[in-house]
Amino acid sequence: MTRFAELQHRLFAESSRSLLLIFQGMDASGKDSTIRHVTTGLNPAGVHVHAYGVPTQEDLEQSYFQRHWRDLPSQGRIGVHNRSHYEEVVVTRVHPTLLKLRGFEVSAANESFWQDRFEDIRSFERHLTRQGHTAILKFFLHVSKKEQLKRLVERLDDPEKNWKFEISDVRERLHWDDYQIAYEKAIAATSTSDAPWFVIPADQKRFARLAIAEIVVNRLTEMDPHFPDAEVDLEKAKSALLRT
Amino acid sequence: MTRFAELQHRLFAESSRSLLLIFQGMDASGKDSTIRHVTTGLNPAGVHVHAYGVPTQEDLEQSYFQRHWRDLPSQGRIGVHNRSHYEEVVVTRVHPTLLKLRGFEVSAANESFWQDRFEDIRSFERHLTRQGHTAILKFFLHVSKKEQLKRLVERLDDPEKNWKFEISDVRERLHWDDYQIAYEKAIAATSTSDAPWFVIPADQKRFARLAIAEIVVNRLTEMDPHFPDAEVDLEKAKSALLRT
Repeated sequence: MTRFAELQHRLFAESSRSLLLIFQGMDASGKDSTIRHVTTGLNPAGVHVHAYGVPTQEDLEQSYFQRHWRDLPSQGRIGVHNRSHYEEVVVTRVHPTLLKLRGFEVSAANESFWQDRFEDIRSFERHLTRQGHTAILKFFLHVSKKEQLKRLVERLDDPEKNWKFEISDVRERLHWDDYQIAYEKAIAATSTSDAPWFVIPADQKRFARLAIAEIVVNRLTEMDPHFPDAEVDLEKAKSALLRT
Repeated sequence: MTRFAELQHRLFAESSRSLLLIFQGMDASGKDSTIRHVTTGLNPAGVHVHAYGVPTQEDLEQSYFQRHWRDLPSQGRIGVHNRSHYEEVVVTRVHPTLLKLRGFEVSAANESFWQDRFEDIRSFERHLTRQGHTAILKFFLHVSKKEQLKRLVERLDDPEKNWKFEISDVRERLHWDDYQIAYEKAIAATSTSDAPWFVIPADQKRFARLAIAEIVVNRLTEMDPHFPDAEVDLEKAKSALLRT
């Protein structure tokens, strides 16, 4: 068992705290494959990975936190959210017309609108981490515009990957700079000691994976999970058992 | 990537079918550790493991299938249910007073009562496997009474495991023969070509793990999952991309 798997085994046995890992990044920044590499080798029973796409009609009729509340890791589990509530202060900020889908006027999206959302996000995450209940680590996979192009072209050329290509990947590249600004603002406003952001250079996948695994293992080491105490009187239980 | 991981990767990419693995067995038959060993090394994003304990009050007020419906694997996923609806024709058959918790008279539990449950289980599983949607494999980990005693004693002696010990483990050993009969009847009545039972000798954990992994890999090989086709015109997408 690796040190990471050993710590996970203890966290799962202890079952009194959980760890939430949030991944954000541009298309082709390697979110899926990084999550796969970082979590493969752990016991899948204690790892819950959720990926979020375009909100469904039902999602749009609820608070943008709701689908994430639904999927928070239970005690003892490591939860991984591939995209998150941060989409609502990044994608929506780059494309404010999306606000209409939630019943807002586009003109509502002034500076104080985004500051309100940042405050709500900080409060949500503060609640989750309160009293040591859930540890939160947030990773922004920072890929360069040039590397993204290279990966998207490779994706089209690879018959095992070209099904992943969406025409929106082309369209969103035209908004590259707006995305960088939106991410910078969101990260600056929501990186707290309880729920820190880690901006991970992601042009080299191998580096990104190692860096993230190390950050997660360090956090679990700090958490120092323990096996629970026995629930029975061991001697009495043993003699009862030996009579069966 | 192992052959198992490669097949899982394709099943997940294909996302049109799923695989449900059901594990049953006496206490200390190795369900948890077998599931951990068989699934570790797969991509946790595509493996959903659910363990079921004593039904909660809410579970008792619903059909005994309901908590399993809730947790069925989505397309592309491998779902693992550690205990299942079979508890309702095994534990409940050994302890018919449990029926009172669901509003039945104990006297209701005659032979036709159990035959009705078997029929419902076959229908439920037939629906899930219908049209190739979900493949189902059911494993009964068959441990001997002697080996169970050895493992329970070891559990008490190991500070990393003694928290797992429950006094009910002692009590249930007194009903060993009734459990064997209830399992035999349930397995005989519900092993179908769509959802076969595999009785796995489990006194040697290593053998059980290898046997189960091989059965699962063979089933996935038969399913032969494929990467989906591209969703875009590859040449057009590439030239649009290179203009960004």
